[in-house]
Amino acid sequence: MKRLTEAEIAEELARTPGWERDGDAVRKAFAFPSFEAAIQFVNNVARLAEEANHHPDILVRCDQVVLTLRTHDAGGLTGRDFRLARAIDAAPRP
Amino acid sequence: MKRLTEAEIAEELARTPGWERDGDAVRKAFAFPSFEAAIQFVNNVARLAEEANHHPDILVRCDQVVLTLRTHDAGGLTGRDFRLARAIDAAPRP
Repeated sequence: MKRLTEAEIAEELARTPGWERDGDAVRKAFAFPSFEAAIQFVNNVARLAEEANHHPDILVRCDQVVLTLRTHDAGGLTGRDFRLARAIDAAPRP
Repeated sequence: MKRLTEAEIAEELARTPGWERDGDAVRKAFAFPSFEAAIQFVNNVARLAEEANHHPDILVRCDQVVLTLRTHDAGGLTGRDFRLARAIDAAPRP
């Protein structure tokens, strides 16, 4: 999986609303009505991550979840990161 | 719930192996054989957190989980943090 160029990253970000660049990663914060709903979301993300064999960093803080995606093997962002980001966004939310 | 004194924190830490002080919080890293096992652990922690009505920050990074406990309402560490830490340590591990 090839590391994306800056132009490709800009194009992918435009297609992936709410995700923000942070160095060699992209990040999005999700808010939920409760801690329980946040944990349900973590389980949904985990399922998608296993399917993609690509694992975001997941931070749960009360009713908030922050996801961070990067491709360690490529040393930066690849198409896999944005594909998983969009799959997460497209999935039903608890 | 009263904030613990420094002496009380030292005493609690001695009774709670593997947890380290980080300012107004305590933290412990847990390693697992897989991402799937890490997520299973997160669900176990979530159950204990709901029972205690006390919610750690949970960071999942691949097959590692880092838990951070503090009592926001008290502005620091209380007995609740160490009680939940020990309940998590005592629970079966995936």
